[in-house]
Amino acid sequence: MTKPTLPKGTRDFSAAEIEKREYIIKVLRKHFVLYGFAPLETPSFENLSTLTGKYGEEGDRLIFKILNSGEFKKDISAEDLEQKSSAEIAPKISEKALRYDLTVPFARYVVMNRNEISIPFKRFQIQPVWRADRPQKGRYREFYQCDADIVGSQSILQELELIKLYDDCFAELGLAVDIHINHRKILSGLAEVAGIEDKLIAFTVALDKLDKVGSEKVIAEWLEKGIAEDAISVLTPLLDNTDGHEQLKTLKKLLAKSEIGSAGIEELEFILQSMDELGLSQANLIPDFKLARGLEYYTGAILEVKARDQDMGSIGGGGRYDDLTGIFGLKDMPGVGISFGLDRIYLVLETLDLFPKDIEDMPKILFMNFGSAEALQSLKLAAQLRMAGLAAEVYPEEARMKKQFSYADKGKFSHAVMMGAEEMQKGEISVKNMKSGKQDTILQSELQHYLQENSSF
Amino acid sequence: MTKPTLPKGTRDFSAAEIEKREYIIKVLRKHFVLYGFAPLETPSFENLSTLTGKYGEEGDRLIFKILNSGEFKKDISAEDLEQKSSAEIAPKISEKALRYDLTVPFARYVVMNRNEISIPFKRFQIQPVWRADRPQKGRYREFYQCDADIVGSQSILQELELIKLYDDCFAELGLAVDIHINHRKILSGLAEVAGIEDKLIAFTVALDKLDKVGSEKVIAEWLEKGIAEDAISVLTPLLDNTDGHEQLKTLKKLLAKSEIGSAGIEELEFILQSMDELGLSQANLIPDFKLARGLEYYTGAILEVKARDQDMGSIGGGGRYDDLTGIFGLKDMPGVGISFGLDRIYLVLETLDLFPKDIEDMPKILFMNFGSAEALQSLKLAAQLRMAGLAAEVYPEEARMKKQFSYADKGKFSHAVMMGAEEMQKGEISVKNMKSGKQDTILQSELQHYLQENSSF
Repeated sequence: MTKPTLPKGTRDFSAAEIEKREYIIKVLRKHFVLYGFAPLETPSFENLSTLTGKYGEEGDRLIFKILNSGEFKKDISAEDLEQKSSAEIAPKISEKALRYDLTVPFARYVVMNRNEISIPFKRFQIQPVWRADRPQKGRYREFYQCDADIVGSQSILQELELIKLYDDCFAELGLAVDIHINHRKILSGLAEVAGIEDKLIAFTVALDKLDKVGSEKVIAEWLEKGIAEDAISVLTPLLDNTDGHEQLKTLKKLLAKSEIGSAGIEELEFILQSMDELGLSQANLIPDFKLARGLEYYTGAILEVKARDQDMGSIGGGGRYDDLTGIFGLKDMPGVGISFGLDRIYLVLETLDLFPKDIEDMPKILFMNFGSAEALQSLKLAAQLRMAGLAAEVYPEEARMKKQFSYADKGKFSHAVMMGAEEMQKGEISVKNMKSGKQDTILQSELQHYLQENSSF
Repeated sequence: MTKPTLPKGTRDFSAAEIEKREYIIKVLRKHFVLYGFAPLETPSFENLSTLTGKYGEEGDRLIFKILNSGEFKKDISAEDLEQKSSAEIAPKISEKALRYDLTVPFARYVVMNRNEISIPFKRFQIQPVWRADRPQKGRYREFYQCDADIVGSQSILQELELIKLYDDCFAELGLAVDIHINHRKILSGLAEVAGIEDKLIAFTVALDKLDKVGSEKVIAEWLEKGIAEDAISVLTPLLDNTDGHEQLKTLKKLLAKSEIGSAGIEELEFILQSMDELGLSQANLIPDFKLARGLEYYTGAILEVKARDQDMGSIGGGGRYDDLTGIFGLKDMPGVGISFGLDRIYLVLETLDLFPKDIEDMPKILFMNFGSAEALQSLKLAAQLRMAGLAAEVYPEEARMKKQFSYADKGKFSHAVMMGAEEMQKGEISVKNMKSGKQDTILQSELQHYLQENSSF
């Protein structure tokens, strides 16, 4: 028999990891609720037709498809095998697919329930998604997304609220962050004044790499993509390594002649000024005109969060999109949303040692097993401790003390409790603090009180 | 564009449903932890080879298989299409499959981590599983399982603890339950004394239907399956509708000559007597010799939980199995575990109106929008309320009051807060209780205090 393995890019989570992940999720959920977002959960798989065509060609390839149950064979012919590609055959034998993100299922939900939900509709969703990506450090085939979105309102107040929501969440996690902000209309305006509206994507994709590769390589890529020298000379203010607030002033002048560009500047300035007035508790809000994540998708503000003290890339992102549900035929449903990257936030908190120390330090009591009569009495005492909220278990076998203590050590028990025949008769019990080694013999009736008083918690 | 739909047998969960489901999960998790179980999470998909052959032929058919990414086509030939069945072709183009239960992934985890875990290993796991079953009322293709298992110990103390764990969980949920208990060795002993050891499965499968179909039909099925009249005459005490404790006395005599049967009686009596001594807070523990769930699998005690006041079938089940990890080549890993049926528990609590009334009744405040200056000031006040743990949001647009109030109603806001230009200038604000209709005008600085004092929560 071959030893079992895990599928590539997947993980088991043990207790310690789950407790830390749940700590993060609990913080996010708390603030989502405080901001008026309601939870939503959608099924792990959707109809394949719901997902295909929503993530671009590359995305379509990365969707995990579920093989039809039963006689799928009848739906492919020898001709199909000969003439068609795997991508063309797949939809014939696969009707369902695993969720690729939380946004498309959310859009599907809004369309299906448009008569029941109240608009603006604010939902948060914390669920796993699956992508057939090549696994690498920090990139998995199954991972959690944590999204908060508002649909049905064009009010820019939402942007203010979402920035503040980021601030509140990361402040409670103890993590100093920079929130980078850009505006799609500014990028469009720049393309307009440079006369390269038709090259907007190539222009921004190269620009997005500025921090990594430097300005020379960005210019080289622009040239390669057919952006002319005179257009590039217009765009050079973007390549300065100056402060975002300074750049904003330069771009405001540059974009004065572009209607869309000026609109972008105006919205961005309103957001920056309002946030100044409202105040952020620890996050910095930084204009960053390189930022272009998901440009095909966003139509207004674009946000990206980075940890200030740890280079981990983006730990969150979002923005405004004007047409969430158009893909399903429901028009006029503008939205704005943000997402938290659970895995990366976890890595940052771990690296910076920011997880609370008491997560794993709950009191936990092990009753040593001295035989069946003592064990039964121990079960009774354990039941009383649990009623008082103390985790307790009885070692199941009358094994050697060394073995039982080794279990107590490995299982991170705070106390080992011993009651042999003599102690049982006298109504007594011995309690050993597993950290300090201190041991006391007390009355059984005092056990709960003793543990509550003598815990280092 | 066709309207999007949900795949058959799947569900979206809205806020109200999620809150109720999480209430149940929170209760289970609390007690799992108090009993010393640690959480485990495994990936949604496993290697197909990990799952196939573990659930019988029917189970294999119901496993959702994931189509290989990329060029899966190369792995099937025209000959395959002609000569092989879909079931034979599937493994060629599908390496992974969705989790069918939590037990096999748990066994896989134990085998892979056998050198790290401490034995006995107590884990709980609350995750969705997927089955390509025909959907029907109460049966879904995606549903949650909630399992607690202990592996690595043969001690019968575990059975006592698990029965008490059921009792604690259902007591906190306010649900009166009967815990039915049987023992695999008693069923084996009965087959022995009736001389039908080779028909154990047919014997118990028919017996299991006694409550539904009556004794005549059970006997008819026995006869049909080749169980002879004289064997049936030995088994008739099972068909009495007498109390389980009475039946136990009869069976004890009947099984005196069977070594395995007597061993089963002895263990069952020990469990019943010990539970009498330890005490159950509300559950009844009932010997039930018809009970035979998953007989191929269980080797000792067999448990099934039913709601006392609502006929919903099994809402939980479990038992002892002597060889969890043998399927992966790791011998001598006995285990015992119980499972909670989340969907059915939900239905029972809903039907009996047992969900706590305050689940949905959190205070939630809506700031009405009277224009941009007022809205900005509202954002500030909302931020203060959130700091104090009160959920608050600002209506995003300066819409008609009627529309804003309709949103407050639909969204189950507890209070609507109004601040027009005049009130803002005076530092005042009006608060309307959405339930009572009562409205007060107070100082903005008193808002938080007022809401905390005047909430019906």
